[in-house]
Amino acid sequence: MRNYLFQKWRGVARRYGFVEYETPLLEATELYLKKTGGELPTQLFRFQDQGKRDITLRPEVTASLARIVATNQRNYPKPLKWFEIGQCFRYEKPQKGRGREFFQFNVDIIGDDSVSADAELIAFAIDSMRSFGFGEGDFVVRVSDREAWVNFASENNIHGDKLTDFLQIIDKLERTPPEKSDEKLTELGLSLEMVQEFISKPENASEKFGDLLENLQARGMEAFVELDLSIVRGLAYYTGVVFEVFDSKKSMRAVAGGGRYDDLIKGLSDNALDLPATGFAMGDYVIKNLIEETPKAAIEMEAWIDANASTDVYIVLADDTKKADALGLLQDLRNADIRSDMSLSGGKINKQFKAAEQAGARFALIVGAEFPELKLKILSARSEESIHPNTDTVDFIKQRLDQADGPLLA
Amino acid sequence: MRNYLFQKWRGVARRYGFVEYETPLLEATELYLKKTGGELPTQLFRFQDQGKRDITLRPEVTASLARIVATNQRNYPKPLKWFEIGQCFRYEKPQKGRGREFFQFNVDIIGDDSVSADAELIAFAIDSMRSFGFGEGDFVVRVSDREAWVNFASENNIHGDKLTDFLQIIDKLERTPPEKSDEKLTELGLSLEMVQEFISKPENASEKFGDLLENLQARGMEAFVELDLSIVRGLAYYTGVVFEVFDSKKSMRAVAGGGRYDDLIKGLSDNALDLPATGFAMGDYVIKNLIEETPKAAIEMEAWIDANASTDVYIVLADDTKKADALGLLQDLRNADIRSDMSLSGGKINKQFKAAEQAGARFALIVGAEFPELKLKILSARSEESIHPNTDTVDFIKQRLDQADGPLLA
Repeated sequence: MRNYLFQKWRGVARRYGFVEYETPLLEATELYLKKTGGELPTQLFRFQDQGKRDITLRPEVTASLARIVATNQRNYPKPLKWFEIGQCFRYEKPQKGRGREFFQFNVDIIGDDSVSADAELIAFAIDSMRSFGFGEGDFVVRVSDREAWVNFASENNIHGDKLTDFLQIIDKLERTPPEKSDEKLTELGLSLEMVQEFISKPENASEKFGDLLENLQARGMEAFVELDLSIVRGLAYYTGVVFEVFDSKKSMRAVAGGGRYDDLIKGLSDNALDLPATGFAMGDYVIKNLIEETPKAAIEMEAWIDANASTDVYIVLADDTKKADALGLLQDLRNADIRSDMSLSGGKINKQFKAAEQAGARFALIVGAEFPELKLKILSARSEESIHPNTDTVDFIKQRLDQADGPLLA
Repeated sequence: MRNYLFQKWRGVARRYGFVEYETPLLEATELYLKKTGGELPTQLFRFQDQGKRDITLRPEVTASLARIVATNQRNYPKPLKWFEIGQCFRYEKPQKGRGREFFQFNVDIIGDDSVSADAELIAFAIDSMRSFGFGEGDFVVRVSDREAWVNFASENNIHGDKLTDFLQIIDKLERTPPEKSDEKLTELGLSLEMVQEFISKPENASEKFGDLLENLQARGMEAFVELDLSIVRGLAYYTGVVFEVFDSKKSMRAVAGGGRYDDLIKGLSDNALDLPATGFAMGDYVIKNLIEETPKAAIEMEAWIDANASTDVYIVLADDTKKADALGLLQDLRNADIRSDMSLSGGKINKQFKAAEQAGARFALIVGAEFPELKLKILSARSEESIHPNTDTVDFIKQRLDQADGPLLA
C-alpha cells in the first residue's frame, strides 16, 4: 500500500527531474524553535536522550531540509529541485486521516523566486494526483496569495504578532462559526464582512497571479486550478503563493498543501543566506483514504498490489526423491528473476496446489517420477502440458509468462 | 544510495515469494523487556511520551514482528514468509559500520520448524549478496548450530543463567584475549581448550546439519557456506541453526546474521502460541561499506544511481516568446513518462545548456523562433538534427531514446 504511493510519487519526481534526499528522523528540538520563531507545536514527540539533549521526532521535513540546504547549498547549482519521502510523527489520538506515524512526500524548489517555480510546483502536485488515476472533476487545487493578505492587513494597520493572529483567523474561517470569526476580527478593527468582500474579488490577488495561471494554462492544467483567497495556510512562515489540493466533494482534509517560504532558510542559517523557496507536502493518510473511496483509483491500486504480490511459478513436488532436482530448478528460475516458490515441507499434492493458489501463482510446475520431464499447469485455465526433458525450462517458462493464459487459438 | 539497497533487497524478496509488512517505529518499552526476559539493551532510545507511557524507538524489528504475528497469525496460511525494510535506532557514538539511525532488512519464515526453512533463509541471504554483484570468493556464510552448544553445555552441567553467560563467552571468543576467555570458562568448570576442541570437530553439529548442507548443495550454493561452530550469535533467544555473513577478508563486522528462534513468539504471546521461526537481518551500513570498497560492486551501484538520477530531455528556450509552447511540450513529454526538465528562469542559451548537462540530460530540445520546428541536440555526441513541424515530437523522442547516441551508421 505505502509502496504503491511511494512508487507513484517517485515516478512523478523522476519525470520532473527532482532529486531525492534524506534527512534524519531525530532532530534537536531547537531546530523547531528556530523555525517557528519560539512557539513550538503542541503535538511533538519530544524527549531527552541519554546525553541529556533535547530531541524531537520530526513532525515534518521542511525544517530539516532548510537546515541541510543552509549547510550544503554551495555544493549544488540552483535552483535545487529536491524531494523526500519521509516518516514523521505527531503526538495525538489516531483518527481518520491522521496517524501518530505517517509518511510525507515533500517537494521543494529552492533558490528561485519566480512565479515559474510556483507553477512548476503546482503542476507537480497536479501530476501527483493524476498518477493515482484522478482526473478533471476529481480534485481541485485552490490557489491563493498570502502577499495579498499581508497587503490587506497592512492597509488596515495590522502588523507583527497581530498579523500572525489575523492570518490564523482567516485560515480557520471555514471551520469557525461566523459570529466567532467576526468577533475576533472586530478585535483587530476589522469585520467578517470586510474579509468576505476581499475574498470575493479575484482582482485582489497580486499581479504575479496572472502569470501563474498563464503558465499552468500552457501546460493544459487550468481546469485543475481555482483562485481562492480564503486559503492562507496555517503555518507562519509562508510568504507568497500558497495552495491546497482538495477532493472535489471537499469531503476530506486537504490532500496536499504548500506554498512559498522565501524567508525560512534565511532564518535557520547562521549567515542569513538568502534562498527563496517554494514547496508542498502530501501525507499518506488522506490520499490513501481518497484512493480507497474512489473506485477507479482503488481498482488501479489493487491491480498494482496484486501484480506485485503474486508469484509466477510454484513448484509442486510430486515425488519426494526428486527434492534436490526441484530445489535446483527453483534456484534456476529465481536466478532468472522469475518469482518462484515451493513448499518447504512438501506434503500432499493437493495441499501444495492450495499453497500455489494462496501464493497467487500463475503456473504450477510439477516435478514427479518422470523428471527430467516436467508438467506445467496454468492455474487459472486449469490446463496442463508437458515440458520435454530436452527443453530449457527457464526459457520455456519465460515465453509462457509473456503469453496469455487462455487456450491458444491457432 | 539507500534506494539502491532497498530495490535490490525487494527484488530478491519478490523472486523468493516473500511478502512485505510494516511495523511501527515506536513501541512500548515493555515489548523489549518481554523479549529479552528482563534485560534491556543499554543502547535504547527510550523516553516517556506526553501521556507518561514508557516508549522506545525500536532498536530492531523482530520483537515488533513477533508481536504482530502473535496477534494476527490466524489470518494467514503458514508458513509466513515475510520481510520488512525498517528504520531502527541505537543510542551510541556514530562510527564506521554503525549509525544512530539505520535501516535493517529483516527476512523471516514463521510457522515452519524444518531444516528446509533454514536452508531457504540462508539461500535468500546468499542471493541478497549476489544481487549486489558479490560472487564466490567475495563472501562466506558461516553457519553454526546453537543446539550443539546447548547440548555441550548440558553435558557439562551448565543451565539457566549460566547457559546465557556461557553462550556470551563463546560469542565473544574472537574478540577477547584467550587468557580472559579461559578465565571466564574456568569459572564455569570448563576451559578454553575444551571449547576449542569442540569447535574444531564438525561432527559435533547436530544431525540436521547434514540435511541443511544437502539442501543448499541442491541449489548450487555449497561454495558460499562453511560450518563454523565458533558462531553462536549474541542474542539470548536463538535456538537452532544460526549464521553470519562475512566478507571473505573478514575486514568488517558481519554483513548479516540470523538464525532460528523457535520460542520467541511463544514468549511474547499471551496464549503461548507455538510458532517456530527463523530469520535474518542485514543492516544498511556494513553492506554499504562493503559495496563501496569492492570495485565491481561499486561500479554496478554507481551505474544504477546515475541511470536513476539523469534526465532524458532538457528543453532549451531560445526565444522567450515561445515559452508557452515550450511548457506545453514539456508537459507532453512528462505525460509520456519521459524524464524532462527546463530552466525555470530561462536566461542565456549557454546557461541553459550548462543546466542541461548538470541535470545529466541526454538530449537538449531547442524551442526557438522557428517553432513548431524544433532542434534536437544529442549532448554526448554534440550532434544536432531538426524535427519537422509535422512530426509527433513525443514519438520521435521515444524512438531516439531507444537508439544509441553515436552517429547512425546506415
